Amino acid sequence: MKTDDICDEDCPVAKASEVLSGKWTTLIVRDLLSGKKRYSELQRSLSGISPRMLAARLSMLEDAGLVTKTIYPTVPPKTEYELTAEGRRIEPVIVAMASFGTGLTAAE
Amino acid sequence: MKTDDICDEDCPVAKASEVLSGKWTTLIVRDLLSGKKRYSELQRSLSGISPRMLAARLSMLEDAGLVTKTIYPTVPPKTEYELTAEGRRIEPVIVAMASFGTGLTAAE
Repeated sequence: MKTDDICDEDCPVAKASEVLSGKWTTLIVRDLLSGKKRYSELQRSLSGISPRMLAARLSMLEDAGLVTKTIYPTVPPKTEYELTAEGRRIEPVIVAMASFGTGLTAAE
Repeated sequence: MKTDDICDEDCPVAKASEVLSGKWTTLIVRDLLSGKKRYSELQRSLSGISPRMLAARLSMLEDAGLVTKTIYPTVPPKTEYELTAEGRRIEPVIVAMASFGTGLTAAE
């Protein structure tokens, strides 16, 4: 069982979990897979997220090198977020989650 | 982009996230992928988890139909946890996370 063999002290599943834990982080990455997004687009898509939570999650993803933020000096300023090459490596996780979630019936 | 197309109001990624959110849930499923485990085995493997958190996560996974619990009337009683067929559907998510986590360098 490959997931077991590689999960000793330095478990990659645990490392991935540290980054992806939390529903909002996963959903932000999902949204960015289709291309760069403005802060306001993310907030509209992630209905229910507080501005504070969205900012915190984006900042964590930036610190982890998974997302870049670009501020355009327009009036008003425009801020865009985009996955880095490293961030795009999360795509197979999101695809697998989508597949698992599609069949989920009694998750509550 | 398939992850985007299917993520409207009833997003399967969000449903999967509800179940898998939290580092411990993922690690418990990882441990159970190699076969049924006793409570004490899980606690030993998941170093750092509190008994209260382990019990809560296992109970949530049971409620979601992803894990079954069997109590053997030995002295002392032995409790074993096992993934259900539905729970085994999480395996591709864990495998994808392991792959993503393997390349992660600067997650902190």
